[in-house]
Amino acid sequence: MNKKISKTALVLWGATDLGPPYFSADILWRTDFKAPDPFFLVDILDEGDLIDFGKSYLLTNPLELERAKKEANSGIEVVNAYDYKNKSRDYIENFLKWQGVKKIIVPDTFPCGLKDKLTKSFEVVLTPAPFYPKRAIKTEWEILEIEKAQRAVEIAVAKAMDYLRSCQIMEDKIIYGRELAEEKIIVTSEMLRKIIDDLLYRQGYLGIRSIVACGRQAADPHCEGSGPLYAHQPIVMDIFPLSMETHYWADMTRTVFKGEPSEQLKEMYDEVLFAQNWAIGKVKPGVDGKYIYDNVLKHFEVSGYPTNTKTRPMEGFIHGVGHGVGIDIHEPPWITFVKWILQEGNVVTVEPGLYYQKERPENTDTQGIPAGGVRTEDMVLVTKTGCRNLTKFPKDLESMIIP
Amino acid sequence: MNKKISKTALVLWGATDLGPPYFSADILWRTDFKAPDPFFLVDILDEGDLIDFGKSYLLTNPLELERAKKEANSGIEVVNAYDYKNKSRDYIENFLKWQGVKKIIVPDTFPCGLKDKLTKSFEVVLTPAPFYPKRAIKTEWEILEIEKAQRAVEIAVAKAMDYLRSCQIMEDKIIYGRELAEEKIIVTSEMLRKIIDDLLYRQGYLGIRSIVACGRQAADPHCEGSGPLYAHQPIVMDIFPLSMETHYWADMTRTVFKGEPSEQLKEMYDEVLFAQNWAIGKVKPGVDGKYIYDNVLKHFEVSGYPTNTKTRPMEGFIHGVGHGVGIDIHEPPWITFVKWILQEGNVVTVEPGLYYQKERPENTDTQGIPAGGVRTEDMVLVTKTGCRNLTKFPKDLESMIIP
Repeated sequence: MNKKISKTALVLWGATDLGPPYFSADILWRTDFKAPDPFFLVDILDEGDLIDFGKSYLLTNPLELERAKKEANSGIEVVNAYDYKNKSRDYIENFLKWQGVKKIIVPDTFPCGLKDKLTKSFEVVLTPAPFYPKRAIKTEWEILEIEKAQRAVEIAVAKAMDYLRSCQIMEDKIIYGRELAEEKIIVTSEMLRKIIDDLLYRQGYLGIRSIVACGRQAADPHCEGSGPLYAHQPIVMDIFPLSMETHYWADMTRTVFKGEPSEQLKEMYDEVLFAQNWAIGKVKPGVDGKYIYDNVLKHFEVSGYPTNTKTRPMEGFIHGVGHGVGIDIHEPPWITFVKWILQEGNVVTVEPGLYYQKERPENTDTQGIPAGGVRTEDMVLVTKTGCRNLTKFPKDLESMIIP
Repeated sequence: MNKKISKTALVLWGATDLGPPYFSADILWRTDFKAPDPFFLVDILDEGDLIDFGKSYLLTNPLELERAKKEANSGIEVVNAYDYKNKSRDYIENFLKWQGVKKIIVPDTFPCGLKDKLTKSFEVVLTPAPFYPKRAIKTEWEILEIEKAQRAVEIAVAKAMDYLRSCQIMEDKIIYGRELAEEKIIVTSEMLRKIIDDLLYRQGYLGIRSIVACGRQAADPHCEGSGPLYAHQPIVMDIFPLSMETHYWADMTRTVFKGEPSEQLKEMYDEVLFAQNWAIGKVKPGVDGKYIYDNVLKHFEVSGYPTNTKTRPMEGFIHGVGHGVGIDIHEPPWITFVKWILQEGNVVTVEPGLYYQKERPENTDTQGIPAGGVRTEDMVLVTKTGCRNLTKFPKDLESMIIP
């Protein structure tokens, strides 16, 4: 140990498997090592350099040691944590001291018990997300991985739409099959969700909380949807597959109709689509997400679709425009009411929507606002001069109406 | 607000969906409410009572408010967090003050940034797991839920064994099919894992990191296994399905052989099985997990299977005897080298194993120790007088040898 050197280290603690608690996307991103039990990752920083790492260490128990050595990123040195155990049992403290570390930087979600202990020996600085700013700048491999997930969700949503195409309309319900059998099977959210999730699974992806919500259910953006789907009403499918292999996500929303929707719904759909295309056109490096959000909100307002966040439930455009996608499904950058400058290499969703629990026939500058929800969502990659849409699925109104 | 009352509150923060980070089994257990974004749960304690709750509150943003009201446990009041927002934006602080709370208890894994903020207004006490001691005492519904998951894993492992039964042995490899085709398909860990995981999925469960490891790979208890499976060698299948619906787990391990194993392996298997049955016989309320662990370790030692945790990799009996199973796959109680008293209503695994990377022919009091790993794992429910085995799958050596 060289006591004369005073080093700073980034310290993370977490697990990297799907399922158990304490999942840390940051650790998985840095190490590529998947483990069910939490372990430590320590990045020793070069003097004054908060971006590039000096040396990085993965501290794990002897049970995971050999596997970590085989599987973790070659740039990371795997250390047997128990070699630094002594009576106090705080091997992380011993390890950091041995490294000459005086100051540590941890995320503000770091476990408070551990942080309090470390405060006794080190200067501890908390940092809010993003912990590794570079994680928001996707590598070529990451972009391919996200695009692969995006192809999987497109295949699944196409299949769900094919299924609806093979159904008939009876009164306001959707009935399974081209020929009406004696026993009529009413198509539900659950049936469509199963088609989508099963096809995702077969491609190596998990659909978790896949949204297939119709009519007034679709007016609650987080409602998963249940029960019968209705003809001529918006069916919002918001599907975000998680790769079981790499833990990268994609995210896509389409709003479809089985049978011609009302003129009111058509107009609402077109306003959402217009706003989305406008927003996608604005995405480029240096642009503030808040600027895009503010203008989408204003656009809806002047088009006769006011937002009211004081009502319960809220109505109008009641969520952000978009979020980053990577090892976390929701991660920086954000396109919402907080300032956030977009950078080349970001992968971000663009997903405006409108939500009304109650009809509003009085809005006479439009044809009136229908009850229901409409959302359309693409995922784009911020390029040097603008963005590239990673979503290849149709979204024009005509394609969304299933005869 | 009644300023005269000085209340204590348990405070939790986390998400309850599979997939996103910050998953909190404690919150899911208390609320039954599944949400992708973290929210707060506050239990106001009755004076001096740390076990039973006074009033409980779920604080969420307006976007999740209506859904939380519909889906959360009826005993929990759902509160719009934004009603407690002011300039400081710390609604949790405002809410707790308004409730007359002076002291809060948080888990030691609580986010340190939040904890530091709350320390300014409240006395904050950290508590290690288990945060809710009652979570380790399973209700009838929980036991049924865990048993259902257990049936799912038994069906999947039975199918994997059927598959092996339909294979042939050629030299040391396992070849697919009853009749040897021209192109011989060598059976691998990956193939067997896919059979198991697919069948779990079809039953509503996820197999995450399902272990199918053979021979020397099986000598690393956390190695998932890859590549060809070998005849006459131990094939360890450690499968822990997660219910996609309720987030309860089960856990079972079987070590099987395709073709007769060596006498050494048979003896090792029988020692592990003997130790497991002995341990299951000791499980009852009031027993210390450490007592069981110490005696299993000693049993192996005197039977000629020494444990050495100093070698790399370690060898012998190198993990605990068991762990609790519930909404977390690893949760209290523990049957390992720490004192932990078992209670009626615990669901706990009993899973001794032996692991040797290298053969040890010199152990002449036995027939010598073979290279490889053997583990067998059941899940038991602690009853008033002993335990009930929730695992219904055979484990005698004869049943584990597939012709």
